[in-house]
Amino acid sequence: MPEQKVELIIIGDELLAGAVKDANASWLADLLLSIGIGVLRVTFAPDDFKELKEILDQALARTGFVISCGGLGPTPDDCTRRVAADLFDRELYTNKRLLNLLAERYKKLGRRFDRIARTQAKVPRGAELLVNPAGAAPGVVLKDESRTLILLPGVPVEMQAITETALRSYLEENFALSAPHILLLRTVGTLETGLAQRIRPVLSRFPDLKVAYLPHTGTVDLRIQASSERKKSQALKEFSRILEDDLYAVGRKELSEVVGEMLLNRGQSVAVAESCTGGMLASRLVDVAGSSRYFLGGVVSYSNRAKQELLGVASGVLELHGAVSSQVAKAMAEGVRERFNSTCGIGITGIAGPGGATRTKPVGLVYIALACKDSVRIKRFVFPGDRSSIRQRSVIAALDLLRRYLFRLSS
Amino acid sequence: MPEQKVELIIIGDELLAGAVKDANASWLADLLLSIGIGVLRVTFAPDDFKELKEILDQALARTGFVISCGGLGPTPDDCTRRVAADLFDRELYTNKRLLNLLAERYKKLGRRFDRIARTQAKVPRGAELLVNPAGAAPGVVLKDESRTLILLPGVPVEMQAITETALRSYLEENFALSAPHILLLRTVGTLETGLAQRIRPVLSRFPDLKVAYLPHTGTVDLRIQASSERKKSQALKEFSRILEDDLYAVGRKELSEVVGEMLLNRGQSVAVAESCTGGMLASRLVDVAGSSRYFLGGVVSYSNRAKQELLGVASGVLELHGAVSSQVAKAMAEGVRERFNSTCGIGITGIAGPGGATRTKPVGLVYIALACKDSVRIKRFVFPGDRSSIRQRSVIAALDLLRRYLFRLSS
Repeated sequence: MPEQKVELIIIGDELLAGAVKDANASWLADLLLSIGIGVLRVTFAPDDFKELKEILDQALARTGFVISCGGLGPTPDDCTRRVAADLFDRELYTNKRLLNLLAERYKKLGRRFDRIARTQAKVPRGAELLVNPAGAAPGVVLKDESRTLILLPGVPVEMQAITETALRSYLEENFALSAPHILLLRTVGTLETGLAQRIRPVLSRFPDLKVAYLPHTGTVDLRIQASSERKKSQALKEFSRILEDDLYAVGRKELSEVVGEMLLNRGQSVAVAESCTGGMLASRLVDVAGSSRYFLGGVVSYSNRAKQELLGVASGVLELHGAVSSQVAKAMAEGVRERFNSTCGIGITGIAGPGGATRTKPVGLVYIALACKDSVRIKRFVFPGDRSSIRQRSVIAALDLLRRYLFRLSS
Repeated sequence: MPEQKVELIIIGDELLAGAVKDANASWLADLLLSIGIGVLRVTFAPDDFKELKEILDQALARTGFVISCGGLGPTPDDCTRRVAADLFDRELYTNKRLLNLLAERYKKLGRRFDRIARTQAKVPRGAELLVNPAGAAPGVVLKDESRTLILLPGVPVEMQAITETALRSYLEENFALSAPHILLLRTVGTLETGLAQRIRPVLSRFPDLKVAYLPHTGTVDLRIQASSERKKSQALKEFSRILEDDLYAVGRKELSEVVGEMLLNRGQSVAVAESCTGGMLASRLVDVAGSSRYFLGGVVSYSNRAKQELLGVASGVLELHGAVSSQVAKAMAEGVRERFNSTCGIGITGIAGPGGATRTKPVGLVYIALACKDSVRIKRFVFPGDRSSIRQRSVIAALDLLRRYLFRLSS
């Protein structure tokens, strides 16, 4: 962990009631680590003056540096500003510039700027404000000889906007930070245990590398920390060699983005025919902005009738082999490729459960076919997990099948 | 908050590095609240003996009751068992029954049951074990005169399985709990501010109801806490009257489930034609197990060519009005209804951004059409937010359009 440490306090009754999920802690921790600040502890605190004061006070006593999220809104239960002023023994005053900014914003949104809304312009004396490019409440920095407390709003888009701009500059100017040498390697196709075996020889030669395994549904990320940039480049070279084409990205790229770029670079296009995944593969491809340049469309052929009429799957094939079969996956891939006139077609058919299993075809059985210019590949899987997990794994496997095919095409 | 309080400690270095998102805290908090246990604080703690010991010790001193998640695995960084034994001054011993269970499990999975794996059978003397129906590590309960500490594994599926069975029984047997009277009302179609105005008259007549607004993308949940079951039923009646058909569910039901049940009850079926949502609506419908009984399939018609060839949208309509137009949405809905022979057809066309806007058609412009037996409805939206938010709001709006139509059909 970097030398500079911080504690995070995430504020809100609804978090403690389990009514909303927090996304701020992990986002902030990730960004802070990347610039050289390690998170020692995260605490979820209630919207309660006394309790919050105790939590902030103790955290400041431990590390001297705390960032909080939430409780900056205009309603009476938002008490972070008051608690912070109390902890630093400062008066809350109405900041004129902030008041004007808020008045303008409310006018623009056509909302009444009433007494309650005005309370948002109150800040502790001597605080530094961090501009909020995405909303009303600015970030607030409070400092004394031994303590720094930074208040951020709890709305994720506002918190992120402040952090990426004003807060980041503030931190880089006011702390002596050294960013760690972290490498994120994203892999698909090998389980955690298999990966561990494969990379063991590298780790024995580079014993000061620290490796964390981050398994997701269908993929595993490796987060590798090196002691220098030079060692980081060495590690990248070694791991790339060992992982071969199981390594689909270095850094925060999604599999769908990687596949999209490869399709573009190679002048290829794709259309998809989905049964059990039911549109999830298409949706994943469309997640990527600009995907219309290579993704031509898809058919969700949940019924046999749709498989026949929209994809041209022969009724004889359906009768002979059943809807969940390699033959039908192949016919779907070929059919959708033809219908959309794409260079590649993908067909997925399977049993996502909980119902639908037969004596010979268990829940989790999925066939995925890739039909391209002069080849058809078909893979059979029996995925573990529930309906959602089986569908997600199918989508990953389909994207990966396409990726490995494109990998072998010259770009 | 209920009288019985607990603190949650979520353990793992990767959480503090922002590398994984925690889902355990909110899940646990929600379940605990429902049986009458309020969460006072949540702390994310590192895999570090000293630090974790301090965090657990302080939490136990504050509330006397702590539940932890994580750090029960076999690797050396998993130290929760050792810390707990130390805090309660108990020896760790190898539990024979657990050892046999683990050996069996490893054998079944075809994995080697080595020295490291065996450490999972170590538990503090005098601990009660909570059976894990989904994995190797059982829950562990440690008690003395004033303190109760419960250790749960961090893998969500295992944590949940133990909590829903053995832990829940344990808590109900060992604590005097009274479940709170909570009503979850899920709404769609009115913003938070509008909802607040509409429900104000009810709240002024029932001043002891506590209302929390939980906004999601495109929907708003109201969590209402009443002081008795009788007041809860009254509240349900009043709110149902005021919210009318903006209220889509009472309790944890998804909009797609509600629509699915309505389709089934009314003997209707649906097929969908998607442009900007790109399969997301189909995928949401398929999320529901058994959806094949009413969801017939869909077409993702990202290109104009697909709109023409697969959905029969006339090229003249596309040329005259452009792909993002009410006319094309209507033609897509009618086309997909005909192709799949469903009673209802939905067409969505829009600009999800960031590119694709024109002088007259901004990012966020979405047309949604619903074609049924003797009617077509078309709605125009300009959704705020980014690509992902616009697509999600489009899916919600489409499901809601269908729901409101079905609402008026007699079942």
